[in-house]
Amino acid sequence: MGFMDDVIDQLCAPGSYESVYHSPKRHAPMPSVEILTEIVSRLRAVLFPGYFGHSEVEPENMRYHIGTNLDKIRRLLTEQINRGHCFVCALEDLDCTRCEEEAERTCRRFIEALPELRRLLATDVMAAYEGDPAAVGPGETIFCYPSIHAVTNYRIAHALQSLGVRLIPRIITEMAHSATGIDIHPGAHIGEHFFIDHGTGTVIGETCVIGRNVRLYQGVTLGAKSFPKDEDGVLIKGIARHPIVEDDVIVYSGATILGRVTIGKGAVIGGNVWLTRDVPAGTRVLQTPADQE
Amino acid sequence: MGFMDDVIDQLCAPGSYESVYHSPKRHAPMPSVEILTEIVSRLRAVLFPGYFGHSEVEPENMRYHIGTNLDKIRRLLTEQINRGHCFVCALEDLDCTRCEEEAERTCRRFIEALPELRRLLATDVMAAYEGDPAAVGPGETIFCYPSIHAVTNYRIAHALQSLGVRLIPRIITEMAHSATGIDIHPGAHIGEHFFIDHGTGTVIGETCVIGRNVRLYQGVTLGAKSFPKDEDGVLIKGIARHPIVEDDVIVYSGATILGRVTIGKGAVIGGNVWLTRDVPAGTRVLQTPADQE
Amino acid sequence: MGFMDDVIDQLCAPGSYESVYHSPKRHAPMPSVEILTEIVSRLRAVLFPGYFGHSEVEPENMRYHIGTNLDKIRRLLTEQINRGHCFVCALEDLDCTRCEEEAERTCRRFIEALPELRRLLATDVMAAYEGDPAAVGPGETIFCYPSIHAVTNYRIAHALQSLGVRLIPRIITEMAHSATGIDIHPGAHIGEHFFIDHGTGTVIGETCVIGRNVRLYQGVTLGAKSFPKDEDGVLIKGIARHPIVEDDVIVYSGATILGRVTIGKGAVIGGNVWLTRDVPAGTRVLQTPADQE
Amino acid sequence: MGFMDDVIDQLCAPGSYESVYHSPKRHAPMPSVEILTEIVSRLRAVLFPGYFGHSEVEPENMRYHIGTNLDKIRRLLTEQINRGHCFVCALEDLDCTRCEEEAERTCRRFIEALPELRRLLATDVMAAYEGDPAAVGPGETIFCYPSIHAVTNYRIAHALQSLGVRLIPRIITEMAHSATGIDIHPGAHIGEHFFIDHGTGTVIGETCVIGRNVRLYQGVTLGAKSFPKDEDGVLIKGIARHPIVEDDVIVYSGATILGRVTIGKGAVIGGNVWLTRDVPAGTRVLQTPADQE
Amino acid sequence: MGFMDDVIDQLCAPGSYESVYHSPKRHAPMPSVEILTEIVSRLRAVLFPGYFGHSEVEPENMRYHIGTNLDKIRRLLTEQINRGHCFVCALEDLDCTRCEEEAERTCRRFIEALPELRRLLATDVMAAYEGDPAAVGPGETIFCYPSIHAVTNYRIAHALQSLGVRLIPRIITEMAHSATGIDIHPGAHIGEHFFIDHGTGTVIGETCVIGRNVRLYQGVTLGAKSFPKDEDGVLIKGIARHPIVEDDVIVYSGATILGRVTIGKGAVIGGNVWLTRDVPAGTRVLQTPADQE
Amino acid sequence: MGFMDDVIDQLCAPGSYESVYHSPKRHAPMPSVEILTEIVSRLRAVLFPGYFGHSEVEPENMRYHIGTNLDKIRRLLTEQINRGHCFVCALEDLDCTRCEEEAERTCRRFIEALPELRRLLATDVMAAYEGDPAAVGPGETIFCYPSIHAVTNYRIAHALQSLGVRLIPRIITEMAHSATGIDIHPGAHIGEHFFIDHGTGTVIGETCVIGRNVRLYQGVTLGAKSFPKDEDGVLIKGIARHPIVEDDVIVYSGATILGRVTIGKGAVIGGNVWLTRDVPAGTRVLQTPADQE
Repeated sequence: MGFMDDVIDQLCAPGSYESVYHSPKRHAPMPSVEILTEIVSRLRAVLFPGYFGHSEVEPENMRYHIGTNLDKIRRLLTEQINRGHCFVCALEDLDCTRCEEEAERTCRRFIEALPELRRLLATDVMAAYEGDPAAVGPGETIFCYPSIHAVTNYRIAHALQSLGVRLIPRIITEMAHSATGIDIHPGAHIGEHFFIDHGTGTVIGETCVIGRNVRLYQGVTLGAKSFPKDEDGVLIKGIARHPIVEDDVIVYSGATILGRVTIGKGAVIGGNVWLTRDVPAGTRVLQTPADQE
Repeated sequence: MGFMDDVIDQLCAPGSYESVYHSPKRHAPMPSVEILTEIVSRLRAVLFPGYFGHSEVEPENMRYHIGTNLDKIRRLLTEQINRGHCFVCALEDLDCTRCEEEAERTCRRFIEALPELRRLLATDVMAAYEGDPAAVGPGETIFCYPSIHAVTNYRIAHALQSLGVRLIPRIITEMAHSATGIDIHPGAHIGEHFFIDHGTGTVIGETCVIGRNVRLYQGVTLGAKSFPKDEDGVLIKGIARHPIVEDDVIVYSGATILGRVTIGKGAVIGGNVWLTRDVPAGTRVLQTPADQE
Repeated sequence: MGFMDDVIDQLCAPGSYESVYHSPKRHAPMPSVEILTEIVSRLRAVLFPGYFGHSEVEPENMRYHIGTNLDKIRRLLTEQINRGHCFVCALEDLDCTRCEEEAERTCRRFIEALPELRRLLATDVMAAYEGDPAAVGPGETIFCYPSIHAVTNYRIAHALQSLGVRLIPRIITEMAHSATGIDIHPGAHIGEHFFIDHGTGTVIGETCVIGRNVRLYQGVTLGAKSFPKDEDGVLIKGIARHPIVEDDVIVYSGATILGRVTIGKGAVIGGNVWLTRDVPAGTRVLQTPADQE
Repeated sequence: MGFMDDVIDQLCAPGSYESVYHSPKRHAPMPSVEILTEIVSRLRAVLFPGYFGHSEVEPENMRYHIGTNLDKIRRLLTEQINRGHCFVCALEDLDCTRCEEEAERTCRRFIEALPELRRLLATDVMAAYEGDPAAVGPGETIFCYPSIHAVTNYRIAHALQSLGVRLIPRIITEMAHSATGIDIHPGAHIGEHFFIDHGTGTVIGETCVIGRNVRLYQGVTLGAKSFPKDEDGVLIKGIARHPIVEDDVIVYSGATILGRVTIGKGAVIGGNVWLTRDVPAGTRVLQTPADQE
Repeated sequence: MGFMDDVIDQLCAPGSYESVYHSPKRHAPMPSVEILTEIVSRLRAVLFPGYFGHSEVEPENMRYHIGTNLDKIRRLLTEQINRGHCFVCALEDLDCTRCEEEAERTCRRFIEALPELRRLLATDVMAAYEGDPAAVGPGETIFCYPSIHAVTNYRIAHALQSLGVRLIPRIITEMAHSATGIDIHPGAHIGEHFFIDHGTGTVIGETCVIGRNVRLYQGVTLGAKSFPKDEDGVLIKGIARHPIVEDDVIVYSGATILGRVTIGKGAVIGGNVWLTRDVPAGTRVLQTPADQE
Repeated sequence: MGFMDDVIDQLCAPGSYESVYHSPKRHAPMPSVEILTEIVSRLRAVLFPGYFGHSEVEPENMRYHIGTNLDKIRRLLTEQINRGHCFVCALEDLDCTRCEEEAERTCRRFIEALPELRRLLATDVMAAYEGDPAAVGPGETIFCYPSIHAVTNYRIAHALQSLGVRLIPRIITEMAHSATGIDIHPGAHIGEHFFIDHGTGTVIGETCVIGRNVRLYQGVTLGAKSFPKDEDGVLIKGIARHPIVEDDVIVYSGATILGRVTIGKGAVIGGNVWLTRDVPAGTRVLQTPADQE
């Protein structure tokens, strides 16, 4: 079994592990995907009472169920927010002494935003119901449509990102990405009454700005065209580099829109179209028809 | 902690929750995704003995294993069918007094359809094996190919849908959608010997009619072109709006076919093609070649 | 309940089950997806210490954690390798008497390859960090980027495949396919410093050869153009039929490259492009611009 | 494998199974030990806030936690009460049409009794703390003393028994019997401020009447002396046949008291004593000293 | 953290571990308490259909449920029997080459004994019901009486022990000992219609011979008086050293009967009695009454 | 549902909950029985390699398994020791600022004591093997004898108690009490080569002092005779009030020994004896023989 000892020696040599090793800070272990899954699942139960978590919520007992869930969310999320910060602090070698206190304040503000978050999601539910002739009722879209699943995670993650939370928002949108194939960056801004039909493969980049009543289909990319680098050849982070999609736009499946272009109000972008320029309001953009052999 | 009470008050106000709240009916809680997962997993064990559920099934003990699984499936599925009906009854305010009895009859008819369902799936297994040069044997496709996973869920869901089951079929195809990225609506009609290679992002709409021996690739959309609305601007549900794909057709990756068009027998649709018109039998449709800068 | 007995009779008739039934061999049940999930999860903990499995690994205790994980991996993986062989032996009716011994030798060689495997993955982590302006640090990509997830599974599976392991490598890449939508065949050859951004729907075929420092986006297909058949009309397996992608190439989202073509060093393939020919080094290939209505 | 079929045939012959087979009634499966375990565990969390179930209960959030637990208890327990009744109905061939409605009423009355039940248990906690010099504080007895565990289960079970619940009370006391070795029949009457030190092997029979401030030790039996039979030789059930133990009595370890005798107020019964007669108030009863060889 | 390495060094020194270390033999790891728990639980489901494991067994589906359970029991138990043998082989340095084959034969004979085992247990159920005035029906004793629990485990273990199975029988009776406080050695012989009321602390030694229709209470010891040693002072194992208890005997709580004495047919032994001599048939033996201070 | 609100109101009134409510301190929730169960289970794996936790430990990989377990034990136990202290601090209103640091120091000293603890347990294993003619080998006693189970928990708990740990030791001995019916207070002092046969109902009090090579049977009480109170009638805690049992003593089942008496070296105490006085070395004490009716 000597070969085992040899391999272990090699794997424990600093030269082997140092670039792929996470050094824990005291009181700040890695964020936990398992706990974040519980948090999002409890948030779903709070936002859509009766559909998730406890199927017998009634007006009479709703206070108890929402209260218990929020109480648990508050404790768990505060801890995860703190871990997210410290993960980054470790990278950037920041002072971390006020992280805990800050995490508590942030979590409180997130919880205070929940009523507005539910209001937004209610509009997304209507968008899903109105946009899909196959939907039997709004409840079906809440219960099993990937769009509602992904947009719920996105809206939660975006609210956290807007409050300065690190790492956690991305983990939450990646959970939905894995479950639905829809990849929405938590930094994107998306207006109310938003729907993505089918959704697999759709990507919405970090600096996208999407208006009200927009509908996307599967395989749509709202991406960046190029990545400006600084004088040292290092990517410049945070530059606005993704499309602006105005109100009432529809983008059909497989379309690719790249760069800081603007798709004007009410425009319709056809399937598989590849676009890197502005599109005026009300315009229809279609792919060149395929030839027939 | 007063802010918690405030938020809870807001979330429990009828104005906040009424559009996203599911009011349970007595004896009819929400369908359970967890139980439906168990049901589908037991169905897989029944349909493909030895591959799933109990890896030591032999002809001598097969009766016991299939019998036990079917017995459990019958009880669990009857209950879920009933819940699915009542979910819709609640929406449509129907009389629900005979739902239970009806659920039992429906479940019986579904179970009686299992031998035919297995026969169909055996042809799908051959299609996967014959269609992929990388496959070692038919068994490998049963055990780990996303196509077999998704098509099994679809065939189960379609059988249920054909028997009038509500909500449950969609949940079952969404399970496969999440696991494989293949989104087949339970309402679609698909002939035997069907295969989707890779599959991520492929979408098959509600009113599609697909013949025998059809092969699709990843990212293929068989979708609707437009959604007719009635005089009040409300979507008309149930209209035939997706393609008819005849026997022996191949559709390569990323192709998009929209509307009630017919792709004739033996046609080949190239990758990334965007199509909204009929294609005669035996035709090859390819994309305009990309230019070179 | 007589109908149940009838259905069970039908399902237990050899004519019904024989093409979808796996007959177990003594001492060689089916490979276990559950155990393989544990193995990959322990490998992740070994390869990226502190990120997975045990978040408080420190240089002082690293030997113990890596040693325990490797010891467990060795036992579990040896067994699964053996099951994978016997699954195929059963198909091909091979002599199986030395499978166990062979499995042990193979597992040992796999474990000896882990330090090199980690070195490769460390370059993939840098590629992900450098390639995505949204990434906060390399650690974030290890912890939650689908590219790292999928490429880790691929590199494990490829190492096993290169050692002659059957069935298991494909199961391992399918696990990642399900979680990320990225479908990399374990037979593909991929150089270091590899990154797939977003990734959903990207497919890399069995005989692909990919150089160093290549970057792909979501929805990219590196596939086969046609499947040569022998005189009896049976697919010829194992022929080189997928693209060669040289160093420093970028392929944007939705592009499809089919057949044994070569994409030369430093070429850039635009989004949604459909390609079936060689591309010279340094070339840019873009889609015909969409018309505007 | 023919012997398996033979054995199965034998075990499925009515002559073999009929005396050990439970025939289910529709809508009334067996009570579930697993669910009853959850119910008792939630009751413990309600009765002793902060010690069990949710260790961060504070006055601010107590309403939510107790409300959620009670709501869940109400649903689960109503169902189990119903199953308990129907288990007996099946035996006694009673009309079962009002069982559900009755179960709901009974459960309500049980829940209304919880505040009094907690008051009683608080006196038992003081008794445990005052009675054991090794106890650090009352909290330690709540958290880990077998007496509090067993007496809590008993008081819950007795309250249910007093409301006419069948079978369930006995299951609940048997759970505590298994965990602590203390066997208290739910029919017994036990006054406040009750403590059993160590407890293993102590038995308190169905018709015992125990006053306030009584202390028992391990291995104490308060049992029946004989079992009167009717003219047909069948045991007469329900006759008062166990001891009456008045206030302030102490019974040391291993003592056995049998029959409807009365142990007067303040009496002390020594270890290993065997008693079948009344003991006047204030008396001490000791075993004959052991001889020395 | 140097102290950790020091302690680990000490614990890994052969002088420290050699007397408390189990050296595994290839293909024969330790028996698994977890698997044995599953086996006993499945046996309970087979022996008492409808009470355990699957609460909706009906005559129509009983064959499937019993067949599936027996099939699983056969595989699991064969493996555990083999492990039990090899555990002892390792101790006694025996040839182990035929252990597997032998284990299969033994398991078969055990399964063939199940119908008789159920017949015996049905008489024990009647004994429990007839012996306890508090029992509502025989079903209640099957479902929750510790006597039935312990006697079931004992009868299973005794059957295995009689077939020469090593170690496993003792583990099975210890499971019941832990759950009920009743400690019956698997070597004891116990006739039909046997009941232990309450049971905590009752001990039945290895060479006991108990007739039909015997009733014991809690805290009864049927033990050995002395342990003869050979010339080297080593205990002689296997000598008949525990009581013979003839038909229709009753032994009340806390009684101790030691040595190879015979308690004659129909005798009654009083509570807390200490006995080391024969008792003629029909005799009553009582403790000296306690004095009163 | 108004009655629910009423009951919740009553249960949330301070007058109802204040004597049974545990108020958490920040950073010091309740000790966790679940975590302590894991700790003890890992300690068992460390102390008896190959019997528990990982059945394939070999000299070659022992360091890794013991290292990993100890590393985990150190982290988990430090936290639990801290919680135990704070539980008491809360009661006694002590300053808690150095609890964490102190817990780390204490845990280190406990771990340093493990080699000696294993040495002691190895003598207990020999005592069990030598003392029970039914034991097949020492390994069987390690694997399934309640005496080894209970004495292991006791020796762990006693080591912690000797280091000043609060609450945790008692929880650890209560776990064994529940599983075995053997109740050993962690404060007791017990010499090496100790064995309790059968064990159910045996109690060993807080201030007992037990020598080497002592053997007890089931139902033995080594208890206190009386509980001196101070002038205010409050129990005086910590006074030596339990027996001293010298080397080589045997106490048979059901015997009760109360008070600070000394049982001299080599004495034998018969079954069911009740003793409250000193017994000279080498003496045999037997119960008065039972009369025969």
